[in-house]
Amino acid sequence: MSARVLLPWPDIDVSEGFGAACYDGVEPPPADLGEVEFYVLPYDRGPEPPKLIGELPSLRVVQALSAGVETLVPLLPDGVRLANGRGLHDLSVAEHTLALIHAAQRDLPRWFAQQTRGEWTREHTRSLADSRVLLVGYGSIGRAVERQLVAAEAVVTRVASRPRPDEDVHGVAELPALLPKADIVVLVLPDTPATRGLIGSDELAALPDDALVINVGRGTAIDTEALLAETRTGRLRAGLDVVDPEPLPAGHPLWTVPGVVITPHIAGGSASFYPRAKKLVAEQLRRYAKGEELLNLVER
Amino acid sequence: MSARVLLPWPDIDVSEGFGAACYDGVEPPPADLGEVEFYVLPYDRGPEPPKLIGELPSLRVVQALSAGVETLVPLLPDGVRLANGRGLHDLSVAEHTLALIHAAQRDLPRWFAQQTRGEWTREHTRSLADSRVLLVGYGSIGRAVERQLVAAEAVVTRVASRPRPDEDVHGVAELPALLPKADIVVLVLPDTPATRGLIGSDELAALPDDALVINVGRGTAIDTEALLAETRTGRLRAGLDVVDPEPLPAGHPLWTVPGVVITPHIAGGSASFYPRAKKLVAEQLRRYAKGEELLNLVER
Ligand SMILES: NC(=O)c1ccc[n+]([C@@H]2O[C@H](COP(=O)([O-])OP(=O)(O)OC[C@H]3O[C@@H](n4cnc5c(N)ncnc54)[C@H](OP(=O)(O)O)[C@@H]3O)[C@@H](O)[C@H]2O)c1
Ligand SMILES: NC(=O)c1ccc[n+]([C@@H]2O[C@H](COP(=O)([O-])OP(=O)(O)OC[C@H]3O[C@@H](n4cnc5c(N)ncnc54)[C@H](OP(=O)(O)O)[C@@H]3O)[C@@H](O)[C@H]2O)c1
Repeated sequence: MSARVLLPWPDIDVSEGFGAACYDGVEPPPADLGEVEFYVLPYDRGPEPPKLIGELPSLRVVQALSAGVETLVPLLPDGVRLANGRGLHDLSVAEHTLALIHAAQRDLPRWFAQQTRGEWTREHTRSLADSRVLLVGYGSIGRAVERQLVAAEAVVTRVASRPRPDEDVHGVAELPALLPKADIVVLVLPDTPATRGLIGSDELAALPDDALVINVGRGTAIDTEALLAETRTGRLRAGLDVVDPEPLPAGHPLWTVPGVVITPHIAGGSASFYPRAKKLVAEQLRRYAKGEELLNLVER
Repeated sequence: MSARVLLPWPDIDVSEGFGAACYDGVEPPPADLGEVEFYVLPYDRGPEPPKLIGELPSLRVVQALSAGVETLVPLLPDGVRLANGRGLHDLSVAEHTLALIHAAQRDLPRWFAQQTRGEWTREHTRSLADSRVLLVGYGSIGRAVERQLVAAEAVVTRVASRPRPDEDVHGVAELPALLPKADIVVLVLPDTPATRGLIGSDELAALPDDALVINVGRGTAIDTEALLAETRTGRLRAGLDVVDPEPLPAGHPLWTVPGVVITPHIAGGSASFYPRAKKLVAEQLRRYAKGEELLNLVER
């Protein structure tokens, strides 16, 4: 039986009568894909997997595993539907947010440096519990971050683009009043004209001494020069998975500021993404086989 | 008015009529302590603060801020009551447990090393979400750890000294059956004859490849040589706030095993401890002033 489903993993249950082929985006795709109706794009594998979209004559559905699919839309033949991976990365980004906060509050770089020297010197650290966290961006990822902050007994204040008093969400216009009361600011924002440079020198100046600025959304939300100025003096600290420019070039002064920890935009791509992605794909295939409405369909 | 209360901090509200003096355990104690009835011991300040217990003629209550008070009991004059700091460190230890797990799962030492070289190289990491965590020790700290693990959507299995089926707690005798199904083992155990060497070569051998062993209780729970053998080959990983021997001597082979992260027994002493300690002390002083029963009294 020839394949009607093209999957990045071999271990997905496919309904009776739906032959499946595997294409992981690294090895070349199998031959004989003329019957493929449902193509699940390999995740984060560069430009080759999207090119295949135009080479599948029976194609009816493309399932992406990323939340952003802007670059795929122009590649879709007429009548082919597109579903995205909204929510699959939430837990991965949220736990990395906590990893950055803990790294900064509990001085992890110091202990790891001591470890390389075989040095046992103890000192009390800051903590997350009881810290006042200003969570800027209260969407899919922001909510997952909040659950973990609350379990750690931090005190969370929510900010989104507009106030939603029923949900205790402040609007972004209230930032000037909220920043002075934050021990930790967490940014989980998309890159839009309104978020670019949202945190500049005035906003940073409004933070109390020793505050920690975390960014896991997009690097453009922070004015890098302003952050550099406030962290170099030691007045503020930072934990950044995203920066501007990205990749941060070798020799950029931000790399070596004490009190700044940087990870190279890896919050979203951790192992927990895969089981979640497989669960979504299995559900989508079940729906497809039964002729039910698919999840996460993207309007075109 | 002379002081009836001796406190490690100046910023505690003391009831009307209760003069307070401050002794932080670093500067010498103030003179004229003849009226002190209630002595709150400075935390983690070495041997001097306990010595003062014998020099306060009006003393009626000693409030310790640690959970373990074995060394104070012999110093108490007849009729002086002792209260401990049970629970004050739970959040601090719990969040450090999460910090060690995230450091190991999200490869933090690698990114911090890259940062010192100004290197932006990306790779997907392990994660905590969906990991199967075997939580060995389900007491005051273990429960706080569990809340944070659950918020991160890890799948927790509880183990204590005896089974408590109503609470879904397994007994320690079931370890051999439970270890093979654990991605992460978290030890939050006291040092007792029964916990010493609980995790030896057989227990480590029962863990699946790449499992992570976390210890924040006491170092003696793990056979260090056995852990060394299993981590040196890269089969297991570890995150340790407590080790055996402690302090870990310079040159000990555990310091430099790849995949092992070590912090120098600092889980309990982070900043969040202080507000919690102050809240307890304020409540105890309120109770003392009203003649009510004190919290956390230690049987002698
Ligand atoms: N580091 C990584 O590896 C990684 C991985 C995945 C995603 N991300 C980033 O994380 C971002 C957030 O993802 P998500 O899934 O949580 O998105 P989402 O569900 O769309 O939520 C976005 C949140 O940002 C808020 N927001 C938008 N513009 C704002 C503004 N000008 N001021 C204040 N708040 C504003 C939104 O406010 P409303 O609630 O008012 O709409 C919403 O609460 C993504 O856009 C992506 O850039 C990073
Ligand atoms: N790293 C640090 O800085 C730091 C700071 C504070 C404390 N600690 C350590 O953390 C330990 C735990 O503190 P805690 O407040 O959670 O104590 P706890 O409330 O007394 O809980 C201890 C837990 O360990 C279990 N347990 C005892 N013996 C056991 C055995 N042989 N096998 C399996 N489980 C056993 C107990 O089982 P049951 O429920 O059946 O009684 C209980 O669940 C302390 O004793 C201390 O050594 C470390």
